[in-house]
Amino acid sequence: MKVLITPDSFKGSLSAMDVATSIETGLKKVDGNLETMVLPMADGGEGTLHSLITATNGKIVYVDVLDPLGREINGHYGIMGDNRTAVIELAVASGLPLLKKSELKPTETSTYGTGQLIKHALDNGIDSFIICLGGSATNDGGTGILKALGFRFFDKEGQELPEGVLSLKKLACIDDKNVSASTKNAKFQMACDVRNPLIGKNGATRVFGPQKGATPEAIEELEQALTVFADVVYQQTGWQIHDYKGAGAAGGVAGGLLPFLNAKLKPGVDLVMEVLSLPKLIDSHEFDLVITGEGRLDMQTEFGKVVAGITRLCNPRGIPVIAVCGQVDADGTMIDRLGLTAAFSITNGPMDLDEAMLHTSKLLSSKSEQILRLFLARSQMGKKIQH
Amino acid sequence: MKVLITPDSFKGSLSAMDVATSIETGLKKVDGNLETMVLPMADGGEGTLHSLITATNGKIVYVDVLDPLGREINGHYGIMGDNRTAVIELAVASGLPLLKKSELKPTETSTYGTGQLIKHALDNGIDSFIICLGGSATNDGGTGILKALGFRFFDKEGQELPEGVLSLKKLACIDDKNVSASTKNAKFQMACDVRNPLIGKNGATRVFGPQKGATPEAIEELEQALTVFADVVYQQTGWQIHDYKGAGAAGGVAGGLLPFLNAKLKPGVDLVMEVLSLPKLIDSHEFDLVITGEGRLDMQTEFGKVVAGITRLCNPRGIPVIAVCGQVDADGTMIDRLGLTAAFSITNGPMDLDEAMLHTSKLLSSKSEQILRLFLARSQMGKKIQH
Repeated sequence: MKVLITPDSFKGSLSAMDVATSIETGLKKVDGNLETMVLPMADGGEGTLHSLITATNGKIVYVDVLDPLGREINGHYGIMGDNRTAVIELAVASGLPLLKKSELKPTETSTYGTGQLIKHALDNGIDSFIICLGGSATNDGGTGILKALGFRFFDKEGQELPEGVLSLKKLACIDDKNVSASTKNAKFQMACDVRNPLIGKNGATRVFGPQKGATPEAIEELEQALTVFADVVYQQTGWQIHDYKGAGAAGGVAGGLLPFLNAKLKPGVDLVMEVLSLPKLIDSHEFDLVITGEGRLDMQTEFGKVVAGITRLCNPRGIPVIAVCGQVDADGTMIDRLGLTAAFSITNGPMDLDEAMLHTSKLLSSKSEQILRLFLARSQMGKKIQH
Repeated sequence: MKVLITPDSFKGSLSAMDVATSIETGLKKVDGNLETMVLPMADGGEGTLHSLITATNGKIVYVDVLDPLGREINGHYGIMGDNRTAVIELAVASGLPLLKKSELKPTETSTYGTGQLIKHALDNGIDSFIICLGGSATNDGGTGILKALGFRFFDKEGQELPEGVLSLKKLACIDDKNVSASTKNAKFQMACDVRNPLIGKNGATRVFGPQKGATPEAIEELEQALTVFADVVYQQTGWQIHDYKGAGAAGGVAGGLLPFLNAKLKPGVDLVMEVLSLPKLIDSHEFDLVITGEGRLDMQTEFGKVVAGITRLCNPRGIPVIAVCGQVDADGTMIDRLGLTAAFSITNGPMDLDEAMLHTSKLLSSKSEQILRLFLARSQMGKKIQH
């Protein structure tokens, strides 16, 4: 009997690795000889860097870079176990948590610091990037990143534009003369679960601007600036990022990088599963059972969450998938639609959220133990009890 | 696939029948053609009358009787589907809930009302009794019941003793001349899970007297009175109820009835299982799975609770038993010791007790659905998903 344990993190409580080992501990109590494989999973959002680095025995590299408002901070990125793929989380150097509420001004924030992280990795021989786009405080169309990588932005007089996304209103030409070959050749895969375009009523600015602190006036100005940027990009590259699906992710980072780098957008969980070679792993082992999980199983789970990714892989192969979650807000119909065999909450009785989060690891072990006991019931229980 | 659903009630929330049908609802969602059998179970305590009557399609009979302090109340007992077995709960006419705190005076309370219920049933042709001993407010050695059935208590001058258990201090002779043959021939089975004797430091008075409101002085007086009673019983019948195991149950009701009636003590859950012919039922059906449950699975469960009774029956027959409970306070070792395949709480995430009790039925259905999905996983999941 072989079990693959591949959960997401429980946000605010346990990393995916800790969730996985807690589950494993419970399973081993039922059968110490059970063959288990532990693979921390992620959906491209918070915790993805940690999961990818832990899963591949990679490492974290710390670098001083600039935050969204140009202040120096100690940032970091991950290098996976293959030593050639870096994992960059946009939130690390360009994220909302770096700013006070009064500092949320997307007319002034820049993704430059994220570009510095990429540059640092490139200079260290990295030629492949996983970029996690979630949590940005910026709306600069990725121009900060492009600048850090050597791209230059000129007005029609040939003057380099001053700092600030709003200066893009005068953009006439983007120059890549100073961009290194290694930058141009590197492979960028962006984890992206939104389908918003860059411009328009469903675009980055109008949809995500307000939650990043943009006033109605700022939104108009940003929209104008990014429209000029998109126009110039179209003229120079033929890329129509105005309405390209997903181009609006992370304040337009996706739209800015696609035309100039060897870049692709992928749904986060698919990207993570692919990077971790999960399909191959599943095909080369005969798993009898897969256990996954996330903090909360609900309507959202169908849309780009780990559990849905795992069932998408396992269902065609006929491998049962069980989800262990902090909370299960799903009826049988949804469990069916998700392709899950069954889903269980870790709670063992009435308790408040704080208590559940305090004891997550123990509750996970205990519930996983019960799950495996039940899973084995039909074939082994008779034997077990009658000895 | 055939499933027996036989849970206890969830005290304060759902009757055993409601628990069972909630579970059944969940199971049927997984497979509408599933063969299920529903049997509300009980442990001889609260809810036993309801379970036995519901399970056998019996009826409730209402009778005006006296409460522990001699006030008229509308009492009731159950007649099982066989129309010859009555179920009497001591708590109905002689229970603690009938008294205010200031009325808790075991020197004055009597089980007479319970005797009236028995008498009423006997007069209606009942010849077999299940007596549930839990929850009494009395400490009269069952003398109230005996009086209601026609037994008379005399002092050495041949004067009938006045009301009140303390008058037993002058007891010299118990007379059964007025007791009917039907009373003497009827079969009494008492559900009893304590092993306390009638007299002494582990006896009824010293152990249970204080929680029934007895002061230290009252305890000494009651102990004296019941000792005289036990002495007289010994002289007349040879029964040494002073230290007979279980004689102290229900303020000595067990000790008082054993010598004078065709009576037996049995652990509550064993008695209920036997009365409902559960062993035969299990032997005559090939159940693939048994689902039981109780409000709270914990250390107490091993001692005379429904779940332990069910596993004791099913384990030797190799039938997996799953418990669905409001709360599960048990680790794998205890689950093993209980002989359970697995145990699950009904909660689907953090929630307080009130919420869990408010939604017990729905949560039970939902959890049972997940349990059956998982139970079927090994044999059917492949098929199910690949169609």
